[in-house]
This record gives sequence, C-alpha cells and structure tokens, in this order.
Amino acid sequence: MATRLTESAEYAHLWSTPQLRAVFDERLQTWLDILAALAAAQAELGLIPEEAARQIAEQARAERLDLEFVAAETRRTSHSTLGLIRGLQRLLPEPAREYVYYGATVQDLTDTWFGLVMRDVGGLIRDDLIRAHRSLLRLAAEHRDTVMSGRTHGQPGAPITFGFKAATWADEVGRHIVRLSEGAERWSVAQLAGAVGVLGFFEPHGQRLRKLFCARLGLSDPVVSWTSARDRVAEFGTVLSMVAATLARIGNEVYELQRSEIAELSEPVAAATVGSITMPHKRNPETSEHLDTLARLVRAASSVLVEGMAGGHERDGRAWKAEWAALPDVALAAGTAAALAADLVDRLVVHSDRMAENLGRTGWASERVLAELSRRLGKHRAQDLLHEALRSDADQVTALASRGVADPADLVTALASRGVADPAELARWTARPELATAVAMVDAVIARGTPGTTRATPEATPGPSEAARAAPESGTPEAARRTSEAPP
Amino acid sequence: MATRLTESAEYAHLWSTPQLRAVFDERLQTWLDILAALAAAQAELGLIPEEAARQIAEQARAERLDLEFVAAETRRTSHSTLGLIRGLQRLLPEPAREYVYYGATVQDLTDTWFGLVMRDVGGLIRDDLIRAHRSLLRLAAEHRDTVMSGRTHGQPGAPITFGFKAATWADEVGRHIVRLSEGAERWSVAQLAGAVGVLGFFEPHGQRLRKLFCARLGLSDPVVSWTSARDRVAEFGTVLSMVAATLARIGNEVYELQRSEIAELSEPVAAATVGSITMPHKRNPETSEHLDTLARLVRAASSVLVEGMAGGHERDGRAWKAEWAALPDVALAAGTAAALAADLVDRLVVHSDRMAENLGRTGWASERVLAELSRRLGKHRAQDLLHEALRSDADQVTALASRGVADPADLVTALASRGVADPAELARWTARPELATAVAMVDAVIARGTPGTTRATPEATPGPSEAARAAPESGTPEAARRTSEAPP
Amino acid sequence: MATRLTESAEYAHLWSTPQLRAVFDERLQTWLDILAALAAAQAELGLIPEEAARQIAEQARAERLDLEFVAAETRRTSHSTLGLIRGLQRLLPEPAREYVYYGATVQDLTDTWFGLVMRDVGGLIRDDLIRAHRSLLRLAAEHRDTVMSGRTHGQPGAPITFGFKAATWADEVGRHIVRLSEGAERWSVAQLAGAVGVLGFFEPHGQRLRKLFCARLGLSDPVVSWTSARDRVAEFGTVLSMVAATLARIGNEVYELQRSEIAELSEPVAAATVGSITMPHKRNPETSEHLDTLARLVRAASSVLVEGMAGGHERDGRAWKAEWAALPDVALAAGTAAALAADLVDRLVVHSDRMAENLGRTGWASERVLAELSRRLGKHRAQDLLHEALRSDADQVTALASRGVADPADLVTALASRGVADPAELARWTARPELATAVAMVDAVIARGTPGTTRATPEATPGPSEAARAAPESGTPEAARRTSEAPP
Amino acid sequence: MATRLTESAEYAHLWSTPQLRAVFDERLQTWLDILAALAAAQAELGLIPEEAARQIAEQARAERLDLEFVAAETRRTSHSTLGLIRGLQRLLPEPAREYVYYGATVQDLTDTWFGLVMRDVGGLIRDDLIRAHRSLLRLAAEHRDTVMSGRTHGQPGAPITFGFKAATWADEVGRHIVRLSEGAERWSVAQLAGAVGVLGFFEPHGQRLRKLFCARLGLSDPVVSWTSARDRVAEFGTVLSMVAATLARIGNEVYELQRSEIAELSEPVAAATVGSITMPHKRNPETSEHLDTLARLVRAASSVLVEGMAGGHERDGRAWKAEWAALPDVALAAGTAAALAADLVDRLVVHSDRMAENLGRTGWASERVLAELSRRLGKHRAQDLLHEALRSDADQVTALASRGVADPADLVTALASRGVADPAELARWTARPELATAVAMVDAVIARGTPGTTRATPEATPGPSEAARAAPESGTPEAARRTSEAPP
Repeated sequence: MATRLTESAEYAHLWSTPQLRAVFDERLQTWLDILAALAAAQAELGLIPEEAARQIAEQARAERLDLEFVAAETRRTSHSTLGLIRGLQRLLPEPAREYVYYGATVQDLTDTWFGLVMRDVGGLIRDDLIRAHRSLLRLAAEHRDTVMSGRTHGQPGAPITFGFKAATWADEVGRHIVRLSEGAERWSVAQLAGAVGVLGFFEPHGQRLRKLFCARLGLSDPVVSWTSARDRVAEFGTVLSMVAATLARIGNEVYELQRSEIAELSEPVAAATVGSITMPHKRNPETSEHLDTLARLVRAASSVLVEGMAGGHERDGRAWKAEWAALPDVALAAGTAAALAADLVDRLVVHSDRMAENLGRTGWASERVLAELSRRLGKHRAQDLLHEALRSDADQVTALASRGVADPADLVTALASRGVADPAELARWTARPELATAVAMVDAVIARGTPGTTRATPEATPGPSEAARAAPESGTPEAARRTSEAPP
Repeated sequence: MATRLTESAEYAHLWSTPQLRAVFDERLQTWLDILAALAAAQAELGLIPEEAARQIAEQARAERLDLEFVAAETRRTSHSTLGLIRGLQRLLPEPAREYVYYGATVQDLTDTWFGLVMRDVGGLIRDDLIRAHRSLLRLAAEHRDTVMSGRTHGQPGAPITFGFKAATWADEVGRHIVRLSEGAERWSVAQLAGAVGVLGFFEPHGQRLRKLFCARLGLSDPVVSWTSARDRVAEFGTVLSMVAATLARIGNEVYELQRSEIAELSEPVAAATVGSITMPHKRNPETSEHLDTLARLVRAASSVLVEGMAGGHERDGRAWKAEWAALPDVALAAGTAAALAADLVDRLVVHSDRMAENLGRTGWASERVLAELSRRLGKHRAQDLLHEALRSDADQVTALASRGVADPADLVTALASRGVADPAELARWTARPELATAVAMVDAVIARGTPGTTRATPEATPGPSEAARAAPESGTPEAARRTSEAPP
Repeated sequence: MATRLTESAEYAHLWSTPQLRAVFDERLQTWLDILAALAAAQAELGLIPEEAARQIAEQARAERLDLEFVAAETRRTSHSTLGLIRGLQRLLPEPAREYVYYGATVQDLTDTWFGLVMRDVGGLIRDDLIRAHRSLLRLAAEHRDTVMSGRTHGQPGAPITFGFKAATWADEVGRHIVRLSEGAERWSVAQLAGAVGVLGFFEPHGQRLRKLFCARLGLSDPVVSWTSARDRVAEFGTVLSMVAATLARIGNEVYELQRSEIAELSEPVAAATVGSITMPHKRNPETSEHLDTLARLVRAASSVLVEGMAGGHERDGRAWKAEWAALPDVALAAGTAAALAADLVDRLVVHSDRMAENLGRTGWASERVLAELSRRLGKHRAQDLLHEALRSDADQVTALASRGVADPADLVTALASRGVADPAELARWTARPELATAVAMVDAVIARGTPGTTRATPEATPGPSEAARAAPESGTPEAARRTSEAPP
Repeated sequence: MATRLTESAEYAHLWSTPQLRAVFDERLQTWLDILAALAAAQAELGLIPEEAARQIAEQARAERLDLEFVAAETRRTSHSTLGLIRGLQRLLPEPAREYVYYGATVQDLTDTWFGLVMRDVGGLIRDDLIRAHRSLLRLAAEHRDTVMSGRTHGQPGAPITFGFKAATWADEVGRHIVRLSEGAERWSVAQLAGAVGVLGFFEPHGQRLRKLFCARLGLSDPVVSWTSARDRVAEFGTVLSMVAATLARIGNEVYELQRSEIAELSEPVAAATVGSITMPHKRNPETSEHLDTLARLVRAASSVLVEGMAGGHERDGRAWKAEWAALPDVALAAGTAAALAADLVDRLVVHSDRMAENLGRTGWASERVLAELSRRLGKHRAQDLLHEALRSDADQVTALASRGVADPADLVTALASRGVADPAELARWTARPELATAVAMVDAVIARGTPGTTRATPEATPGPSEAARAAPESGTPEAARRTSEAPP
C-alpha cells in the first residue's frame, strides 16, 4: 500500500490522471534517458568514447536495473544519485562504466528532469484548458440569451445571461493558455552546470556540450546555469496555482448553483455513482467541490516554490529538496484539476427553466427601474425613492426580512402609489430584462476564439470617430505595445 | 500616529518609498479622477449633460472634500463609496449632483483604481529592475574574471567568478522584466461593469461607454467584465512575489558573504548609520536582510490574491475586500524591495582580495583533479581514489573534521604518494582555476542586454554543423515558437 | 491620508476596532513606559541613580516628544530606536539623559511591547469569544428543537436542529478560549536580553534586573532570553488564525443560509445601512462575508510568523522585522473578527419558519426510512432498494435531475408500491424527524458552560456498567491525564 | 514505482521514518479495525447481532481483502468507502454482511482514523522531542562555560556560551512538548456522527454508542460531532508547523556554523556517506539543511488545514478532502524532522577550540567596554566615544571595511590614546568575557528539566524582598493562574 492516501490504489484517481502519473511513474526511465543523452552529447564532442555512449544508451533501461540495490546504495551513501549510477554501472562493461554520469551533478539530472516535467505537464494542462475553453465558448454561444439572476455577495440581483457567465470563464481560461505559452519558453530548459555551475569538469567544452545535450532532449538552452535561479520552477507553480484557482471558481459556481434550493446547474453524473449511502436521495457536486480542494493544494505547494527562490550560493539544498516534494504536488493537483474541469464544462447540465423561475422570484428589475427613474428624477433622488419604498412598505419589509429580497410585484405597486411612474410604464420596465451589452460581450469573447489555435473572425470594428481615441483591448497587439513601455 | 508600525513616521521609510506612497496617498484624488472620467465619457455619449461632467471634473478635488463627513457617512451607511459620493455631491449644484457616480458600482471605482495602481507600481518596479539589471551587467563585466569559491550547501567548493554569480542574478532579473511587460498587458485595464457585470444601467451603450472610459484613463478595455475574474490581480501578486524573492536571493547572498568570517562582499554604508548601539564594532547588512523580510511579506500577501481568484458569482465580497488589504501590501513591499535592491547592487562593495584568499584556503581543485584523473583512470575509479585519499590520511581527516574542507596542499601530497600523478602535474592542476566556461556565460548574458531596452550585439553564432541541431536558447524567438506548440 | 486603505479614515473601521487601535496607537507611549520601567528597575538595583529614573518616568510622555525630530533621527541613523532615545534625552537634564535605554537593545523594547500587545489583544479577543460563546449557548438553548435541514456538500440532507448547529459552533469557540488561556502563559512575557541575549551590560545583575523589569510591567519572566526563539509570537499568530477561521466558518454559514433562495438566517441590519446602490432590493450579508475576508488575512500573516521561527543566531533581523508587519496584521484582523462575530451571533436573526418549510421540500426522511428498512431487510439490501427506487421512477428521476433532491411524497409512493412497508408505516417514518441525540448533544454543550467562567452543572452521569469502560470526554480532566501520557 | 519522489524506494527515507510509515501503511487495517470496533459497540447495545460483530472482527483483516476489487469498486461508484465495504462483505456470510458499516458515514471512518493518527504521530513526535530535549540539556550542561561569539544579523558580536545557545533551544523545545500534551487532549478523539452529525440512524442510542465506540479505540469522546469543526486537525497542523520550525532553527544554526570559514559545529557523519561526487573534499550539512526543507513543507500543508476550518454546513467536502492530502503531509514531514533532529543534537560535534579562536578575532569586548565607560562617562557619551574611535582610526576603518568587525587590539589602543581609561584597565576589560548571567540562565533551564518527565529540583528561590513583587516565570503555575484571567 502507498503511504499516502492520495497515492493509494483506491484514491489515486482523485489526485492524478493516467497521463500525469505516467510522467512521474516513468521518472527512473527519464533519468536514464537523460544520462544517455549526456553520454551521447559527450561522445559527439569526443569527451568519451562513442562505444561507451552506445552501450550506456543500450543499458539505460529501467527494467534492467536492480531497484533494490539502487535504493539500498542510495540510503547507504546518503547521496541522491549514487545508487542509480552504481546500478547502471553494474550493467555495463569496462570501460563504459566509467563514463556514466561523466562530470555531472545531481542537480543536472533532477533539474533537467524538472524541465521535461514542466514542459510535458504544462503541455497536458494547456491541452485541457484549450478543450475547456472550447466547451466554454460553446456554452457561451448556446446560452447567449439564457436569462438568469446575477448574484453578488451571495444574493440574487439584476439579471445576466448564463452565456455571459460562461464568457467570463472563457476569458479567464484564455489568459491562462497564454500564460502557459509564455512561461513554457522559460521553463522548458535543461540544466548542465556541474559542481558549482561553471561546468569546470568539461573545460573548455562546457557551453557546446550543454547545447548538444539540450537539443537531444528537446529542451531550450538556459544560456547560464540556473542551479540557484529558481524562478522558472516558481513561475510554473504560480501559473498553475492561478489555473487551479480559476477552475475552482468554476467548480464553486457549479457547487453553489447546484444547491437544490437554486438548482440552476448540475454536474453530469455517471450511472454507477453512489452519492450518499445514508442519504440516498442526494446528489453531491463531487467534481466541482474537488476542484476547490485541488486549488488549495496547488496554492500551498506553489508558495513553497516561490519561497525556494530566495536560496543561497551556487546550490541551496533547502530550497531544492523542497522542490522535490512541491513540484510534483503542484503538477499532479493542477493537472488533475484541468482534466476534471474540462470534463465538467464539457457536459455541464444547464437548467434554463430554473434560471428563469428563480429570476422571476427576485426583484431583479430594480437596476432597470432605477435607470429609468434616474432619467426622470435624477439618479440619487431616484435611488433614495427606491430605498424608501423598499423599506417603508410593510409587505416589502416582511419580504426583505424573511427572504432577503423584495417582491417585484410589490415594488411596482409601491412606486405606482408614489406617482413617479404609471403602472403601464412600470410593467414595461419590469417585463423583460434588457441584456444587449451582456450579449455583445459574449459575442466579443467568442469572436476572439481560443488562444493558440486558429482564430475566429475579429469582432466588428468600432466607428472611426470613437476608435481614434478608444482604449486598446486587453490582449491585443496595441495593448502589448503600449503597456510594455514604462509609464511616465 | 499611524496604527501600524509600518506606516509610522519613524518606520514608514523601511516599508515604502516616496514614489510608492504617492501612488497610494493620492488614492482619494485618483478615485475622484475616475469619477470625473466616467462623467466625461458619459457626457460624450450624451448620457448626462456636458455641463454636469464639466462641473464634476472641476469639483472633484480631494482638497475640497470634507473628509470627516465622508468618513462619517461611510461608517453610517456601511457602504463603501456612498460617503465619498455624498461628499462630492455637497460641492455640486443641481442637477450635476445627480450625475456623480452615474450607474456605477463600488467595484468599478476600486477595480479601475487597481488597474491604475498595477500599471503604475508595475512600471516603477520595472524601472528599478532595469536599473538593477544594468548594475548587475556592470558587476558581471567588471568581475568577469574575479575568482572566488563557489559554494553549495553552504560549503566552499570549486571556483567560480564573481562575474558569473552576478550574471545569474542578471539573467533572473531579466526574466522578471519580461514577466512584468507580459503581465502589464493583462493587468493595466479598467473596470466598468455595473451592478452585476452587464452594464444594465447604461443599456444599450455599455460597451461604447467602457471604451471611452478606458481611453480617458490610459488603461486597456477588458472586453468583458472581470468583477469575479481576479487572475489579473493575482498575476500581479505572483509576479511581484517572484521579483521580491529574487531580490531576497541577492540580499541573502550579500548577507552571508558579508559575514566577517567570509567578508567577500559588503553593503554600502551611509555615513550617519549606527549599526549597533551596544556593539559599536559591528556593521550589519541591514538592506540585504530587509530584502528577505520584504519578500516574505510579498509572498504571504500574494497568496491571499491567488486564494481570492476562487470567488463566486458576479461579485464575491470576501475575495474582493481581502484584495483591498493584500494588493497594497504586495505593491508597497515589492516596490520597496526593488528600490532598495537597485541601490544595493549599484553600490555593492566587492572584496576581490578576500575572495582569492578564501579560495586559497579550500580544496577547490578537487573537481579539476577529478577531471584530469578521470581521463587517466576512468571517472569512478578516480572518484573512489580521491575519496579514499581524503578519508584515510590523518591530516585530511583532521582538517575535514575541524573545518569541513580538506587542505589543498595535503591533497597534492596524498595523490602524489599514491603514484597516480607526478607532483608537477598536480601542481599545474591546482595552480589556477580554469574558468573559460564561466566567462563565456558572463559574456553571453552581457551580450543579451537588458530586456525592453536597446539590445547589445548578439553573441557569436555557433558553427553550422552544431547549430543545425542545437537547442534554441531560452528567451529567444525560436524557443518561443517551439514551446508555444503543445507537446506531442 | 493613510497610505493603506485599511488605515484610512473611511475604512479603518472595517479592519480594526477602537480598543484594538488604542493598543497600537499608543505604541509610542507604551515604548516610553517600558523605558521608564527599565530605569526604575535599574534604580532599584542601584545601577542608575534614583533621581534619573524618576526624571525619566516624568518626561517619558509621548505628547512631550518632538515627533518630527524622532522620525528624522531614525531615518538619519538607520537605527530603529536611536531617534526615540535622542528625542527623550532632549527632554532630560544631565545626568539623567545618560540613563535612558541604559544597556538595552532594540529587541528588548520591541519584544517587550510585543508581550504587552499579545497579552492585551489576546485578552480582548478572549473577552469577545466569551461573549460570543454565551450568545451561542443561548442560541443553542433557544433553538434546541428548531428543526432544519442538515446540509452536506452544499445539499440538503437529513434533519438537524439549529440548536445543534449553534452547539457545534460553541464547542469550537470554547476550545479557542482554552487555547488563548494556555497560550497566554507563554506569550505574556517581557524581553530583557541585551546585545546578544546574555545581558552582558548588566553583569552580574542580569537575572534580578529582568525579574524586577517584568514585574513592573505585569509580564512573566521568560527565564531565558528569547531573541531568536519566536515560538511565542508564532503561537499567538497560529491560535489567532484558528480563531479567525472558526469565526469565518460561522460567517460563511450565515452568508450561505441568508441566500434569498434559502433565507434561514439573516444578519442583523442597522437602520442606516445601504446594501446596494444599484440594486436597492438586496440585503447583503456584509459582516458574515467580512469574517471570511479577515480570516484569510490572519492566516497569511500568521504563516509569516511561523516562517520567522526558523531564524538564525542570537538575532535574525529578517524574521524579526517581518514580525513588525505581521504581528499587528494578525492582531488587528483577528481582533476585529472577534468583535464583529460576537455582535453577529448576539443579534442573529433565525427564520424558524423557513427552516421548517425548506426541510419539508427535501427528502430528509431517507436516512430514517433506511434505518427502519435496514432492521427489516438488512442494511445494504435496504440501501440498494432505496437507490433503485430513487433512480428508476420517472418522477424521481425528474426531481433529482432538476432540483438535486427527491420529492418525499414520491419516495413514499415508490416504496409502498414495492411492498416493503405499508403506507401507514411509511407515513409514520416520514412524519417528524427524531432528533433526541441532537438535543442531547446540545444539552451536553450547554451543561459544560463557557470555559474560564463559572461552570454550569455537569451533565447527567452515565449508568455505572457503561461508565466503567466509557471513553473520557475530550476536554475533561480524565482526558487530559490519559492523552498527556505518550502512547505506547 | 511510487508516483511521488518522496514515496519512492530510493528517497522515501528522507521524507518519513519506519514508525511513521507504519502508521500510514497500516491505514487499511486501521480502517477495518474501526469498522470492527463499531460493530462490537453496536452489538453491545443490541443494535446488531453479537454473532455478526464477531464475524466482522474475524474477517476484517487487510490481507484477506481483494484490493483490486476494492479499488475498482471505489472508482466505479465514485464513493469513498463503498469499495472497502463491498470487499469486506464478500468475506462475510449472511446476515453479517448486512451489519458492516451499519449506519456510519465516510467521515466517521476517516475522522476516527485521523484521531488515531494524530494521537499516534503526536506521541511519536513528543517522544522524539523529549529525547532531543534531554540531549539539549546535556549540551547545555557540558558547554555551560564554552565561550563563543554571539551573532546578530549574521555578524559576530559580544560573547555568549554555547551552553546558553543550547539552553534557548531546549527552552523552546520544552514549550512544544507542553503544546503537544495540551493539544492531544483535543485531537485524540473519535468521530461518530452519521449522515449530518446527529446520529439519526441510531436513534435514540447515538450518544451511548459513541461512548462505547470511543472507548474501544482508546480515544476521547468528542461530546458533539465535529464533522465541520476542524480546529482539532488544524491545531495538530499548526503545532507541528511550529515544532518543525524550531527544529529548522536548530538545523539552520548548525548549517551556518558548519561553514568551513566558521567551523564551530559539525553534523555527525556516517562512515559510508558520500558528500559530493564532483567535489570530494566537501562535507555537506545534509541533515541540518533537510530540517529546513521539512519545515517549509509542514508550514505549507498546515496552512491548508487552517484554511479548511472555514468550511460550511454539516460537511464540507472541499476542506475535508484537502485534509486527506495535507494531514499526512504534515505528519510525515514533521515526524521525520523530529526523528532527524533528535539524532542530530544527540551526536552534534562541538568545536570549542574554533569557537574560542573565532571569538578572539572579533571585537567582542565592545559591549563590556561600553558598560565600563558608561559608569565613568555616562552611557551615551561612552557610546559616542566608541563609535568615534571605531570610525576615525585608519586601521579600524580598514578592518571594518574589509571584515566587518574591528580588531580588538586596535580598539584598546584607540581608547587608551583618548585617555578615557588606562591600558591596564582596558586590558582587564577585554581579557575574558564575563558571562555569569548566561551561565545562570543555563542552570535555570536545566533545573526545570524536561516537561512531562520527572522534574529536576527547582532553582533557588529569590530573596524575600524581591520575590514579593517579582514577575512569575513563564511556564510556572503562578504564571498560569495570572494569565488565564482576562486582562482588565
């Protein structure tokens, strides 16, 4: 049995996915591949015999290693990689065994592995976010006009459309796709630094060797050693902590709107799922709630990575070993969240009827009534009148006291009785929400398409007189140009 | 007296700078400017009278407000901005007073202010990082060949140059400059969302109004409301937490290397500084240590911002109010750190003589000896021999036991006595460190120049045969292209 | 204007209380009092002239200091207390001015102040928790039998009573009162350590001087200097982070149950409160939501204090200065939360009718039906039957799909049609919740009373046969004895 | 291979101990034991047949379960314990299989397991801290008079003794032993709550059943269900985060003082340890540095537990599942730290000769000289004189600039030349540190003994005149009485 619940046969599926587990379960083979790539690059420069590199590549197979010997040697020597090296040497003839891990240090191995993990897990998450983004754009389009209560501070307020809500999700997820691309340029790098970062063992071939080593692994060349410059790892963590937080936002929304008293959204449910043993009538928003759980774990582990950036000298074992625990935690939890969220939004159940019904029960029209009365009375006078009407009429007070919102019909009566508008006008104002702007924002988000994929057609250009002075849109090239200049 | 030590007359200078304080001290005027910009944009679209907008702009001056009235009304109404609005209305004639804050909500004001703060503080920090980057490049160039001990796990090891150390700092700071530019495209935005995000009050003019409003403030248009999409604020926090951590890394290095037992670096000291009252003979690395203090605060506050991303519905007061406290904390502490660090590296005192002297006392040559013997004996045999020599000779054991490092002269004797190399060879290997790769990395970092400023000439192109398959360098356009594609 | 929003005239009331602000606003006077106490203790031991101590006590008045001079000297000397010392010296004649801060160091002053702050703020919070605990016991008693839905995973399930919910709150708050008392024994201490902790300046009078100094300030004697042993400060932070989290739990519950779709609880509202300008029909749970905001800030700042515990040597300026910012943050936010929460629970509005109504709409009886059928069919067979009934009947499926819970009437029909129970039995099982155990737990919590105050009469003793082997109750003396022995 | 590095065969020994792993590796058997205890308690009350309870106890053996079936059913049903239940049912005859997990819910199982884990891991850690405390008292006694530099801000200052340093460690560790005992009374509890906390399934036997259930497991009875009251778990986390931070403080001190430039302390080293492959001359402080790594992980995971306290309703799956990951993380990392630290301090190597040698090189006497001159000149005049002497003499300036500390011989010359003291006096003052107070504090800490074990004889009572008003000592009964009363 695994020591940790989160790795146990029963529960590992909640904390990882098969693809993510593969990245980490194949660690030993990946480490061997890195050793083989190093030997190959060294042979290419003539630092070790070609034959040795060939033999190393051939024997560097996890299944051939005596894992118990490797583990025992690791413990016996208190050295992080000596067990592995001796395990591999056992498989090799003389003189190849002398050329294993030739001039490298532990961090060359583990940091290069980190580079591969960050590249691959970052890629998996980006793929899931692209999948989620497409589902969100579809939801935004389908429910562009599906009216529902906007809610602030947990209370139903003025109307929105569900498409608008989905568009704000898509917009945020879209920015994460961009962040993952920008970050990947920095974190998909290898490490070849040697004892203290200056590749002294390989003098004067250090830089050329590193370039060849990186190329063999499909990673970027870091230009300068980063044994103590841990911003790449920390950025990976912080971007993932933000990704997971956004997915938790979506999850929390589903969790709240699935409450049976609201019932506007539901998670898709698999047939064999057993919600509650003792309360068989219930359906729990399990995936949604788990997204919040995962986000907490990613955030906590990510802060360990940022803390580790402040380490000292040419290698700081305190920060570096903390990464051994925290980076996999970040990667597994965020990657699981991305996979779960992509599924969740893909098959999210939207109860449009309940959205309409709930909206009908709340005094959603007050913003509209306020706007109309503002034109007539001035805004603050209109506002005072509304507040007064809602607080002095007995029925309103009762409704507010017991349900927290006013009854819309009562509002009409109260205002009509004050003579500020006639009942017909009031009926018109409260008949149907006007949501042209919501819809236009939905269309704008859809028009942008999913970042990093084929773009949809651009939205309609604003009229010339306004456009001349109009603000650039966040995310467009103009914005980029403007904001990358330092402010005056 | 300020309630918080960090705002007190005596200590505020440790936790802010005049420029940063100005950004926050002028909050009230900035809020008034935002209200004036909103009125002006509304007048431009004909939503309110031109005259009202003009009068609002004229009276929206912090110095004219009755601040006690504003505060008292804020408390009395338990509403975040009603005090300010009523304070401004008092200054205005009818009907202009009806057009103050016309259709806006609190978050329109506070989020737009956040957009301005993030743009301006982000810009100040970027400027300080550019300044620091230039000093670091200068240090890298000046000390390109200044030999010193590399240190890992706190222990002196093989040699590096101080220029190499400075280059790794510059490299990391350079990535932050890029992150600040990339992030600024996302966080330099305004908010105009209305009650629940869909600008219902302004139907059907919402989008056009927002565009004009943004343009007047010099901020980007967010395309869709972000009242609950807090990734922009969180990204600002996480990037600043990483910036502060890097500056703490530099500070911690100075702190450790200024230890009087090491004494390789010193902080610059102002004449009137009193280090210790009771121990007048000491000089404390006050700025260096403070950089670590500030980084801790930024990291803690930044995690509040990421936590807030998981908020619910169209406005989540829990997350939003937490930002009120955490965003200024992040901005002030990180901004102070950037200013202090830029000064520190600008005037850092480097004791090259002590660097050489310390290096001479440690067995720095073991990596070089290992490399040379590896060619002769095979690497692992050479390694075993070195370990054996260092652990069996009585003098070495004593030296290791008492100082943690072997004596270099003893190493030469021990190896010569084993017949693996003659004394002349050994003397050559241990005479002078070879650091061609360190120097080449310094040159590469210098050649890249400071991001966002005029670039230096590119480094020499590698030869064709290698270049064909060589890894792209992290941060170059090729790297960008490659890594922004999803991995297979 | 204050630089921070949270200290501004408009908003400080959300982030502090007058009593808490007094603790911090009087910092300067408290520091002067500490200097006077030190001088008095020194005079008592004959280390300085009696007259000097008397003059110092007389002049050590904040209102007499030239604060601008103090601040300017602090900045000029870069020394934390030299400004204050010189400010006080200016007020004193010779030779008294030589005896100000005689042999002390900055940390003696700031840590002793911390001891006073922790004692006083800890006391204020404990008082508020005692007040809240009493209100919660009253709510538990009043609503001992008020039936409502228990909710798990956000979904209504089997019934509880509101008194039970209040009792779980009281139980948790009660443990915090105990923690505050236990912690206060550790954190209500002074510091008198001198330059490096061994009171070298005062040889050989150090210990006696510290004892007298502590006694004058009403603080405990730490026995050994704690300049780098920061567990006291960290414990204060972690206990407060837990206190604030519990209050946030109560706040979040009110926030959720005040949703107009649920409307089972409401915050008390002051008459002049303006909930929403643009949506005047809404009432927001402002205090409840603010409790969660405050808890986030306390947690973040508290982690800075724990991080600071790992500092080095005899004084670690990195950790210590971080406390300057984090301890006040912890104290102010947690203290504000305690005051707000005590008010909230004191005047909490409970809508018993809505609780009953909501419960009636959900299939709360399924646990009871399951229990009854289990006796007849076996538990797992009963469970399968219930699950089958709820998933196969068309009406149930519809109800589950749209509202997430089954209709109780349908459940009766479905089971009766399966012949496992007759309709009369089913009607009896679903008529009224049985909640004897809930009520008994409420009574047990009430019987324990509020910790640290006069205890209520103990609950009824269990019968002798069971009691012989019965588990001790958590919090009783038997439990204390048992668990303080190390497990085998 | 384990997915996580920290659980792999090679590295698990760095992140756990055999005893800690046993606690978690036996989870499945512990869960089965809990199910058997529940059945036994139910049979005792006549709720299920005695025979069924007997059969359940007999079959509830981890080695009999079909683990693949259990895992597959867990995934298929998406229910946390249904797989386990069905696995156990398969082993049982009718009707016993109906009485497995009779009326319980998942949290009854997992929270009761948490209670056992917290009791057992808390006990293991307490044992290790007691062991460490005894070693620290021994170090304090042995090195009661071993003179060394006190260091502040990383710089050597006035002298202390190493025994004093060890005493401050012991004092802090001692408080943790007390905290673990106090906390254990709260966290060593079982959970039996049923669906929503009111044990509805067992009406009216809930309370009696829980008492019997708790007694069988050796846990306290919680009095009221704590499904959403997570302060017990959070307190376990925060106390452990503080324990780990203190151990990191000790580790960091060893790490810094083992620097070869200082070399005052060394870690014990096992014979087969290989410090650095590429730099064989180095010895790394591996355990010391790992204590800091572990403390970071405990702190991060602990904050997840505090965050989880703010959960909602009668069960909050978000917080609860986060505990599944965070509680084991906290327990394993803190438990490993305690075991490592107990070993480290037990065999710590103290280089008294280096301590004396280093002290001789620094101007340690300035505090003593200041004290003596203060009596003659007044303190501030003495201070100014010292500062002036240290800053104006060319030699001093050079020494300060290059090493950060003044040369003691130069100080004597400089002062003698100023005529404030004659060379003989100065020589006396700087000849040998006076450390009577340091030694007295060491003796006081030793006299207190290790908390929770047989106490040493109390320290000598202070004289009557002083004792009358003397402050109580922190940690004594008087202190307890005083501070548990609320401040006025």
